[in-house]
Amino acid sequence: MPDTCPTLRRDGDQIVILDQTRLPWRETFVRLDSLDAAAAAIRDMQVRGAPLIGATAAFGIALALRHDGSDAALAAADACLRATRPTAVNLHWALDRMQAALRPLPAIERSAAAWAAAEDIRAGDAAANAAIGRHGLAMLESLAAGRTGPLQLMTHCNAGWLATCGHGTALAPIYAAHAAGLAIHVWVSETRPRNQGLLTAWELARAGVPHTLIADNAAGWLMAEGRVDCVIVGADRIAANGDTANKVGTYLKALAASAHGVPFYIAAPRSTIDFGCPSGAAIPIEERSADEVRIVAGLTDDGDTARIHLAAAHAAACNPAFDVTPAGLLWGIIGEFGILPPDGLATIASHASLAGH
Amino acid sequence: MPDTCPTLRRDGDQIVILDQTRLPWRETFVRLDSLDAAAAAIRDMQVRGAPLIGATAAFGIALALRHDGSDAALAAADACLRATRPTAVNLHWALDRMQAALRPLPAIERSAAAWAAAEDIRAGDAAANAAIGRHGLAMLESLAAGRTGPLQLMTHCNAGWLATCGHGTALAPIYAAHAAGLAIHVWVSETRPRNQGLLTAWELARAGVPHTLIADNAAGWLMAEGRVDCVIVGADRIAANGDTANKVGTYLKALAASAHGVPFYIAAPRSTIDFGCPSGAAIPIEERSADEVRIVAGLTDDGDTARIHLAAAHAAACNPAFDVTPAGLLWGIIGEFGILPPDGLATIASHASLAGH
Repeated sequence: MPDTCPTLRRDGDQIVILDQTRLPWRETFVRLDSLDAAAAAIRDMQVRGAPLIGATAAFGIALALRHDGSDAALAAADACLRATRPTAVNLHWALDRMQAALRPLPAIERSAAAWAAAEDIRAGDAAANAAIGRHGLAMLESLAAGRTGPLQLMTHCNAGWLATCGHGTALAPIYAAHAAGLAIHVWVSETRPRNQGLLTAWELARAGVPHTLIADNAAGWLMAEGRVDCVIVGADRIAANGDTANKVGTYLKALAASAHGVPFYIAAPRSTIDFGCPSGAAIPIEERSADEVRIVAGLTDDGDTARIHLAAAHAAACNPAFDVTPAGLLWGIIGEFGILPPDGLATIASHASLAGH
Repeated sequence: MPDTCPTLRRDGDQIVILDQTRLPWRETFVRLDSLDAAAAAIRDMQVRGAPLIGATAAFGIALALRHDGSDAALAAADACLRATRPTAVNLHWALDRMQAALRPLPAIERSAAAWAAAEDIRAGDAAANAAIGRHGLAMLESLAAGRTGPLQLMTHCNAGWLATCGHGTALAPIYAAHAAGLAIHVWVSETRPRNQGLLTAWELARAGVPHTLIADNAAGWLMAEGRVDCVIVGADRIAANGDTANKVGTYLKALAASAHGVPFYIAAPRSTIDFGCPSGAAIPIEERSADEVRIVAGLTDDGDTARIHLAAAHAAACNPAFDVTPAGLLWGIIGEFGILPPDGLATIASHASLAGH
């Protein structure tokens, strides 16, 4: 994992992001110089991962207010960013924080305050990641106690440093375990249709963490064979009752883990918990373009990036981006607050996010 | 569905197959003129689907014995074909039948008898498909009774006419329902890593059956949303206790169906039941090349077929081709024998396959 934050940084009155639609084949940085550019980067998944979406939205507000700190500009920027993606609640959390920080101020002070508040969200996310790593490491160490051979972990999608402003959520305990010398191996689920598992494999390869890529379909077989000791995934929104929306396919893995007694953990900061949402049924599930199912990107034999059509443009495809895993299938939620049982979130409902202060 | 059998036909002393590795983009027929060509076609999945693998192996014996009907030639051909793919038991069933038909004969008579026996297996499979369609249709009609809107079906992989010598196994009831005027819609699971769901979508489009392609990951979400009324899949080997090996990912769908009370059926001929195999634990699961996970084929924007690398060649990937769904998750097994509960297979253990006579 890099020491700095390559996913998102301020450069003067612009922000610079790592374009995740080009990964893992090209490491391309993109400069965002307007509200519209920030909104497009979120919508098109140049930035992705619930915590990073939140931080990018915060910086999007700062971009929007550079030359106009009026109430109208603030409201318009908020509405534009809020409409980019529906499921990740960190987006709303970050925008709520920005509103709360900026609305009381005179228009003339808002630009500087927006940059400072966005930076605060970014730093808070990195701190939350680090705490998730520590709490998750303790859990993994206790799972590993007395075992021979590496601890066999599984993750889905990408909840690593690419998805955050720090070391990641689901991958933070994995990086912490690797740094602590715990023998681990990670099953990396491809995560169709957007193949974010390739981002996870790329991260783990850079960090030297042993890992193996699998088709999403293989997760049940591996668990049935006793080859998975623990599953850790991130989250896009956790309802007050512990029901958790995460990348589509998470639910199938949770069902298989439950069938085989495999511990299944969510790793997410406090900002991913939506106490205004009573249960998973109330979480909006984004449906994305059918082209994500029909078209896939990769490298040609010559090493050029290319996209190919799996199915014809007229083929009907349905593409929910997330699913909901019921709280009853979860062993715990690892946050900066520690590890809570999914039905125990109420204990931190009144606490402000550590990431927020 | 075509009226003839395009997947596999005899032409003089050769056989002609539809090359399924080129589908759905190119309809290419390949002539097989030797044992080795037949074995390679099975191994490389130019022909695929348990029943079609069995029939191709039978014709492979005929190809092998054209000029040499000796015991040695028969044994060598049997061993070569038997080693092509480990999971689909129809391969062994067909080879056992060929051995039983040919061994008692003098060498001089074996070539003609091999063609006849292979043709018998092919015709028997088509007849079994038709019976599966009739039995499955009755089940679907009873599910549809009193419903408004189309019956929402889901399948995985391809168990249509491409996988057989007739109208398919899992798709036979679907074709029968469509022909009978029952309103249906089929969720077609992509089936990574080989994307056989695209073959199913191609079949259904040709037949005018309404369908929608989904990422494998989306199956749990659709079931949780109440948008699936019944799942029907094929099988590669059914153990005596009803445990069923089918394309990897089947098990995850069965777990989700069970969690939501969705009827889950296996459709397979008697030749897919291995009464010598007591349970799923004894079914060998083929692990295929990691390149199947790393590389995907499709069409470029220009309409040329191309393959791209999703992951680098050195990336570790694990690629089990099948998984085992425990009998307890199955509502029934639809065969030419009717629909049996998975724990009721013993009632047909002593019966010869309808497809075999």
